[in-house]
Amino acid sequence: MLLYSLLICGFCVFYSSAIYNNNPGPKYPPTKGEVWPKPQYQKLERYYFTVNTSAFKIKATNHTCPILAKAIERYSFIMRNTFNLDLNRKPKTSRHRLPRETNSEDPYYQGLLKELDIELISPCEEYPYFNMDESYELTISTTAKLLSSSIWGILRGLESWSHLLYLTDDKDGVSIDICVNRTHIADFPRYAHRGLLLDTGRHFISMSNILKTLDAMAMNKLNVFHWHIVDDQSFPYQSEKFPDLSGKGAFDPSLVYTKDDIARVVQYATERGIRVLPEFDVPGHTRSWGEAFPNVLTECFSDGKVVGVGPMNPTVNTTYKLFQELMEEVQEWFPDKYFHIGGDEVQFDCWESNPDLQQYMKDHHMTATQLHALFMKNVIPLLGNNTKPIVWQEVFDVGVPLSSDTIIHVWKNGWVEEMVKILKAGHRLIFSASWYLDHLKTGGDWEDMYMADPRLMVNLVDDTAPLDNIVGGEACMWGEVVDDTNVINRVWPRTSAAAERLWSAGLASNSLERNVRLSILDKARHRIEEHACRMRRRAINAQPPNGPGFCVGAKLF
Amino acid sequence: MLLYSLLICGFCVFYSSAIYNNNPGPKYPPTKGEVWPKPQYQKLERYYFTVNTSAFKIKATNHTCPILAKAIERYSFIMRNTFNLDLNRKPKTSRHRLPRETNSEDPYYQGLLKELDIELISPCEEYPYFNMDESYELTISTTAKLLSSSIWGILRGLESWSHLLYLTDDKDGVSIDICVNRTHIADFPRYAHRGLLLDTGRHFISMSNILKTLDAMAMNKLNVFHWHIVDDQSFPYQSEKFPDLSGKGAFDPSLVYTKDDIARVVQYATERGIRVLPEFDVPGHTRSWGEAFPNVLTECFSDGKVVGVGPMNPTVNTTYKLFQELMEEVQEWFPDKYFHIGGDEVQFDCWESNPDLQQYMKDHHMTATQLHALFMKNVIPLLGNNTKPIVWQEVFDVGVPLSSDTIIHVWKNGWVEEMVKILKAGHRLIFSASWYLDHLKTGGDWEDMYMADPRLMVNLVDDTAPLDNIVGGEACMWGEVVDDTNVINRVWPRTSAAAERLWSAGLASNSLERNVRLSILDKARHRIEEHACRMRRRAINAQPPNGPGFCVGAKLF
Repeated sequence: MLLYSLLICGFCVFYSSAIYNNNPGPKYPPTKGEVWPKPQYQKLERYYFTVNTSAFKIKATNHTCPILAKAIERYSFIMRNTFNLDLNRKPKTSRHRLPRETNSEDPYYQGLLKELDIELISPCEEYPYFNMDESYELTISTTAKLLSSSIWGILRGLESWSHLLYLTDDKDGVSIDICVNRTHIADFPRYAHRGLLLDTGRHFISMSNILKTLDAMAMNKLNVFHWHIVDDQSFPYQSEKFPDLSGKGAFDPSLVYTKDDIARVVQYATERGIRVLPEFDVPGHTRSWGEAFPNVLTECFSDGKVVGVGPMNPTVNTTYKLFQELMEEVQEWFPDKYFHIGGDEVQFDCWESNPDLQQYMKDHHMTATQLHALFMKNVIPLLGNNTKPIVWQEVFDVGVPLSSDTIIHVWKNGWVEEMVKILKAGHRLIFSASWYLDHLKTGGDWEDMYMADPRLMVNLVDDTAPLDNIVGGEACMWGEVVDDTNVINRVWPRTSAAAERLWSAGLASNSLERNVRLSILDKARHRIEEHACRMRRRAINAQPPNGPGFCVGAKLF
Repeated sequence: MLLYSLLICGFCVFYSSAIYNNNPGPKYPPTKGEVWPKPQYQKLERYYFTVNTSAFKIKATNHTCPILAKAIERYSFIMRNTFNLDLNRKPKTSRHRLPRETNSEDPYYQGLLKELDIELISPCEEYPYFNMDESYELTISTTAKLLSSSIWGILRGLESWSHLLYLTDDKDGVSIDICVNRTHIADFPRYAHRGLLLDTGRHFISMSNILKTLDAMAMNKLNVFHWHIVDDQSFPYQSEKFPDLSGKGAFDPSLVYTKDDIARVVQYATERGIRVLPEFDVPGHTRSWGEAFPNVLTECFSDGKVVGVGPMNPTVNTTYKLFQELMEEVQEWFPDKYFHIGGDEVQFDCWESNPDLQQYMKDHHMTATQLHALFMKNVIPLLGNNTKPIVWQEVFDVGVPLSSDTIIHVWKNGWVEEMVKILKAGHRLIFSASWYLDHLKTGGDWEDMYMADPRLMVNLVDDTAPLDNIVGGEACMWGEVVDDTNVINRVWPRTSAAAERLWSAGLASNSLERNVRLSILDKARHRIEEHACRMRRRAINAQPPNGPGFCVGAKLF
């Protein structure tokens, strides 16, 4: 009986190893009950409890607030629904589910855990913000307790709690019990800004997939939804002040985000401790603005004839006036103190082809690069004193004087040298170059994303750079060939790799050596296999990360 | 009024052109009413009819049968449902839908088309088969008529009919009418075998996604569903004779295909003129067989110790006996006269490491390659006289004597030379090397698949090879990192590129020259944009083929 009981629960991190590949079964069997991203500190014991998810209570013992009450409701629902399909599955054999009592002889079994107490030490804050406190402590013992001085830490801790639960099988694969091991977790994020960019300008993404994305972000402790909402190809932001912007600039009148939609996204994100960072990318990604306001764009010439339109025209007041008036509305709808103003990929050849701009540059002894700098210098103050800008790296490169609270977003080739330069100039930065989700590779690529640690990269090249000014990073899902059909499975679980890199302890300096790298990845493979299946059980269609395998209990949507 | 009417319907194949990229709107505006794959012959006129899809009648005027009756029902449903969302969309402006009468002054307008008559000349056949007649003629004139001497041709013609319908917009983008142009199509496939391989051994694919795949195949006039049903990692085929094969070899007891499931797939495919070609890939992809029958596999040795299991053991009778008895059942469940027996990627190093096999090879003066040949020579006759084998190219390479009705499946590097060799040896072949859907490329890759024409490739290298013996090809969706989360959007519309190549007229011999290639692709881009959106309107989640754009009326599932 003891032998049998041991099969049921216990210390469940295991790996398969085989010299010959192509063995039957999954290539990387999933772990059981591992938290993703990996906590900064976790003591995991072999002793375990069982959990009756339908009777389990999550209770706030100190401060509470609507965000906490909703979170308790949400995670209670998640607990009840994650494993329910499995427990009802037809057993492989005719033997029935064993009653819990048969475990009484198992020395590691600690009984039924009935409650998780949440102790929030300070009153709730209303909106998440840069550098908010996300630390928490979680103790699973004869009592279970989640402690944080911040509502945001409580949200992170609840997510970890939901990862600790795992389902055990008997030797015939019949699901038996939901277990949780005795453990102590003390956790906090390594980087303050941990984001995902979604581009809704190249293809429209439905509200339901945006909200699903926020659910998935919360599952991965990401805290910034970078909404690259409009671009050259379409303007789905439905302004109340300037309805023609989307009226003429959206792909279709049905493919827009209304004020209510945006409010819903902001609220949904807030409840999950996620900031919503809007981007209106000027002056180089603005063709769709010109459908309603052609005079804010530059006409591009060839052989004395107009052959198209290019970036915003930085030499006319209409441009700045429209920008300022629109941004007043946008900033009202998006409460975050940061604002991504773009500034990348300006087509200088168009500016240089336009006779008026040629004259302007001649009169002011300027190059197109300097015109770009001038434009950025002009628009940044239009955001107002309370808003801090985030800009793509080109804005730094062209020499715009930037305030110390500006964050520079690094995305291009030569990124390590660029980061060193930015840091040495005293600026803060976020990193995306290794996390471009539109870059595809046969067989998958989360491993490379997983091993990309911006502070380590910089440190290996220049150990005098102030690493703390690398404040985070973002995975970027550009929308050229991504829409509702494939956005979820293209983003997940690849973004989970970046999410762990941004939350968990940094990679050691020898981690790029072949053997160390392989060993780090081998551990992560089994863990991400569990995590991807966990996402699928929670209705996020995360694609298979690792080669052959399966995920039962997945909810298909 | 005339000017306005012209905006409404008419000859609707248009392209955008712009020197400056990143213009607002879709990168490649879709065509309207273009058939995919392109018919062998089509005369398209500017004159057009309107169609009231809810009152339209499709009628069989000669032979009929259950397959035809169901097809009429299916395409009537498709007609009613493809555009319904659009016609109900909120107009951009407050102006209402124009009544049909306003078109009376349009000289191209030919009135309301009310009926499509189907004339099937011969009685229906029961199952689709290799080289069946799929030709048809479709005439849209004051009467509309679809003519074929074969039920399979009628099915292809009905599909084309559904592509001819298009929705017109007024100048404000308000949907106005469903139109169809006067046209005459005479059509037939270039290649007899036009397939899609789905691998359900590396990841399980749900029945609903298999049936959806068959719908999508019918939309692309593909006619072979190559079901790579089991592999090393799992054995989801639930045998009645040998229940332990899936009982022990499936990933999970819930992840199996029962006899009823298979019958349903065969029937669903048959109704769409699609053959179901099963593959049981021996001896190199059979680890999962060993969970129930370990003694049919070879033990692999290293330093005198067993370190794993490898390919089937070709030297023991148990292997052949199990194979034969299982295949009797499989052949009963799958009515097609062809059977894919695999034969690829045999791990010779395992055979060579096994002391018993070493002795056997020594006794019989054989190499591992010869052992492979021996195995194939032994198993092929076990399929019986009525079944024609299809084998991966290795079986030809190792020198197995193959009957003239064997088809060789080409998939590896050096495929052109391999095809020449196979053809010169008097064999028939199908081609897949350029259509491996697991190979991914940033930004998309259907263009390369589109330009891959096996007969042209061979002809450019050796114009004496008998090209007609290239009887077709298959796109292959290997399942290592593909499951229900991403299979549909990874297969479609990429497979549409191969489908057109296999159905439509061949590429001209200069088509690989840069400018010719670009012009071919430019036309295809606008057409595939329409086709991908058409699939989405019919609940197939085809991903965006071409960069920025949109598809209204898409049904999300």
